[in-house]
Amino acid sequence: MLGNFEYHNPTKVYFGKGALENLNEELKNYGKTVQLIYGGGSIKKNGIYDAVVAALHACGKEIVEDGGVMPNPTTEKVLEGAAIAREHAVDLLLAVGGGSVCDYAKAVSVSAYCDGDFWQKYYVDFEDPTCKVIPVACVLTMVGTGSEMNGGSVITNHKEKRKIGHVFGSDVMPKFTILDPTFTYTVPKRQMVAGIYDAFNHICEQYFSGEDDNVTDYLCEGLMRSIVVSSYKAIEDPCDYEARSNLMWAATWALNTLLDMGKETDWEVHMLGQAVGAYTDETHGMTLSAVSLPYYRHILPYGVKKFRRFAVEVWKVEEKGSDEEIALKGLAALEHWMKDLGVAMNISELGVTPDMIEGIAEATRVMDGGYKVLTHAEIVKILQESL
Amino acid sequence: MLGNFEYHNPTKVYFGKGALENLNEELKNYGKTVQLIYGGGSIKKNGIYDAVVAALHACGKEIVEDGGVMPNPTTEKVLEGAAIAREHAVDLLLAVGGGSVCDYAKAVSVSAYCDGDFWQKYYVDFEDPTCKVIPVACVLTMVGTGSEMNGGSVITNHKEKRKIGHVFGSDVMPKFTILDPTFTYTVPKRQMVAGIYDAFNHICEQYFSGEDDNVTDYLCEGLMRSIVVSSYKAIEDPCDYEARSNLMWAATWALNTLLDMGKETDWEVHMLGQAVGAYTDETHGMTLSAVSLPYYRHILPYGVKKFRRFAVEVWKVEEKGSDEEIALKGLAALEHWMKDLGVAMNISELGVTPDMIEGIAEATRVMDGGYKVLTHAEIVKILQESL
Repeated sequence: MLGNFEYHNPTKVYFGKGALENLNEELKNYGKTVQLIYGGGSIKKNGIYDAVVAALHACGKEIVEDGGVMPNPTTEKVLEGAAIAREHAVDLLLAVGGGSVCDYAKAVSVSAYCDGDFWQKYYVDFEDPTCKVIPVACVLTMVGTGSEMNGGSVITNHKEKRKIGHVFGSDVMPKFTILDPTFTYTVPKRQMVAGIYDAFNHICEQYFSGEDDNVTDYLCEGLMRSIVVSSYKAIEDPCDYEARSNLMWAATWALNTLLDMGKETDWEVHMLGQAVGAYTDETHGMTLSAVSLPYYRHILPYGVKKFRRFAVEVWKVEEKGSDEEIALKGLAALEHWMKDLGVAMNISELGVTPDMIEGIAEATRVMDGGYKVLTHAEIVKILQESL
Repeated sequence: MLGNFEYHNPTKVYFGKGALENLNEELKNYGKTVQLIYGGGSIKKNGIYDAVVAALHACGKEIVEDGGVMPNPTTEKVLEGAAIAREHAVDLLLAVGGGSVCDYAKAVSVSAYCDGDFWQKYYVDFEDPTCKVIPVACVLTMVGTGSEMNGGSVITNHKEKRKIGHVFGSDVMPKFTILDPTFTYTVPKRQMVAGIYDAFNHICEQYFSGEDDNVTDYLCEGLMRSIVVSSYKAIEDPCDYEARSNLMWAATWALNTLLDMGKETDWEVHMLGQAVGAYTDETHGMTLSAVSLPYYRHILPYGVKKFRRFAVEVWKVEEKGSDEEIALKGLAALEHWMKDLGVAMNISELGVTPDMIEGIAEATRVMDGGYKVLTHAEIVKILQESL
């Protein structure tokens, strides 16, 4: 049953080869000063930076540079970016990169004119912005987080060893997003598969909850199946446009608010993964994959019907044997696919050592929408099994 | 493969029991004068009219009445509505009813300040509005058309015996839409099943095209399966909230632009059905169901792989036998479901007589996105088989 909800996703998406050509037209809707936000500089090598700068110049914009956004954007970096935005009174935050860059742009958007401690306000107390918000736009170069069409923003506080996400409302969502699947061709394989698993897991987090019959679950199954099919093609040939375009669009819809409308959701894998990420600074998708199977095997008995359905509908497991047997075959199929992808299968390979377990468990937020509300002992057990 | 596209759907949706309570807050965003658009008056019996009027009064709005919108809104009615809107300089067109009422509101929106013949401009020449457009909003009471979250508007010209739809851009889409599944409880069964089939067929029209691997097809399959499951529950118990809420949300996404992003689409069943509708003034969904099976059986040999996939993924047909045998079993399953629903299975029961066939065939627009571009002779044959 769908619970009550409000759906509003005004982000305009330009999708396809050459979609960047729409940038000029969109830029006309914003003022003179654009903060150009990007990561480690790969966009300078593949020509995307030059193309974006050319469009900005053609529209007579003043560019304020804000590069060097790290894979897990930090509170310190957000404060720097917010100071730049304020100082130059920027009119648009243009994020060119993957999810981290886009997450960071949203954090800057709500922090530039925020009184007080932005980390406490948004990421600890989960308040909504009351200050002026700077418009955000996105040119996506990496698939996975869905940040290009939602209000989500994950920030890491190294001092507190915490990595926390806040989902802002539609005023913080990108005004427009440019999705050109060819921009993802040059992403290194490790980043690509981490992004694919991230997108897939976003769907799992929304799928593994509730006992009801819910149209969203059918959409989840469709998206998961498509991601699996396209992932094999993209591994085989990173320049397979069909596969890359399907992955890009599926990942966007995996987390652009549609799938959690009127539905309970879990998100415990993300809570575990983010806690691991705060300790290891590892790629987000890899921290998720490394804890997923121990978590799902642990909660399976509490949601066996849904795990059975997952097995049959997503993995085409034959409906023979007990519900639990079928359900377990579904997780075995998931494991098989994850190994084919080449994502991290345990947290040891991400640098976690047994002495860190207690700290990570302490930092793991406990969610209550899934099949089991975890106790501290259960979190420790799952993390130990993830080693 | 996803082709290039632009996606932008800014309609805000309030969904669930009691969603109408959001009307007051939304009304604050619009001026003083509201044209209240509705159909034959069923909303006066079930209390929805009174609730809407109370909200309008509470917000100090002036109400301009525009009731009596017919199931197939006519060009004459649109001219009347446009004159009312102009005369009172209305600030918002509030459609309370089903798809016809919402379609009509959009036609009024683009016609009130249109120079020249709106029918010719929008519905024959498929031009976009260049005049001022009046904001539209919707309180939905009947499920099926998807008009509540798209720019579509189908209008009937009785003089020309033509019923034509135009899809307007995001400025004509409803600004907000209120979807309360309980509002659909009292819809007569014939209207309910026609709406369910309409929604299902919207998905078919977008599904039966292309030979590619496309994430959208997986979404289509999920939505179709959910509609079938919920339809049986809604027939059994019209007040089953779970079923009604799934049907309402699935129907919205069946035609709110997502499914045709980057995809070729067919729409020939709608062209045939609308031509039948212009001759019989029958309920839209029934005109579609009455021509569907002869059409799909005719084109099956040209798209056998997709029809096979439809059989396996939507209807769980066993993968035994030739592709064509499996595909035909899928259509048999579709036929079985349609009979269970109780939709029209031929055009004779809608009042079509053999002498009308030639005229209907003449009025049928030929689309080129499906598996076969129909000749005139093929259209005549399909219509004869639909008798």
